[in-house]
Amino acid sequence: MSDEPIDLAVALAGFDQLWSPRIVTRVNEYDVRIAKVAGEHVWHVHDHTDEFFLVLDGELHIALRDSDGDGERTVVLPRGAVYVVPRGTPHRPSSADGASILMFEPSGTPSVGDRHDEIPEHVDATTGHVL
Amino acid sequence: MSDEPIDLAVALAGFDQLWSPRIVTRVNEYDVRIAKVAGEHVWHVHDHTDEFFLVLDGELHIALRDSDGDGERTVVLPRGAVYVVPRGTPHRPSSADGASILMFEPSGTPSVGDRHDEIPEHVDATTGHVL
Repeated sequence: MSDEPIDLAVALAGFDQLWSPRIVTRVNEYDVRIAKVAGEHVWHVHDHTDEFFLVLDGELHIALRDSDGDGERTVVLPRGAVYVVPRGTPHRPSSADGASILMFEPSGTPSVGDRHDEIPEHVDATTGHVL
Repeated sequence: MSDEPIDLAVALAGFDQLWSPRIVTRVNEYDVRIAKVAGEHVWHVHDHTDEFFLVLDGELHIALRDSDGDGERTVVLPRGAVYVVPRGTPHRPSSADGASILMFEPSGTPSVGDRHDEIPEHVDATTGHVL
């Protein structure tokens, strides 16, 4: 990891690809990732880990279903809001007007989870790219 | 953890105590903590964990020494900057004009580390308070 501070605005300015998380730094066995997002991600589930979201800019929606796949609802995260999707919870992030987000999750966590719907062309299935 | 998003600005407005981290939410066995800070914290070391800092407002300085206690330097984090203090690194956060910060570290991590200088009155030795 970097031995100098990293300005998230500068880091975000360094790439354009949507739904393609960059690993900013690591904390023990966890990644701190940032992503630019717009439109809809894909319904997916992380079976073994919670996933933390912080909205750096814009507004993020996260559609959620019960672990049995029912009871859909959507949480709305304006800039400066945080939310943790519990492990095992089907979810689909989206942002109509675009957003920049920060995530904490164990290194190696796939962006599309352990189970997912068909991955659309605009979604990058990755465990995170170097910044 | 909350099943609704948490606005960090609202959370920060809910307390005044300096150097007294609040646990905003949990991610697996990790805490997401926020704190208001001003002046100097205490030199301390986390022997077994890295510690992640994100500056939400203001400017944070983190003085660092080599693990043998030599070679002091200070990193400067403006608003929107992140930095990870590696495990075993003596460090002392400070903020001349005050700052609000977010931290990510294993639940149970003491705010003053596993080893520390004498704790001044204004520093809260805690594993984090509920919000």
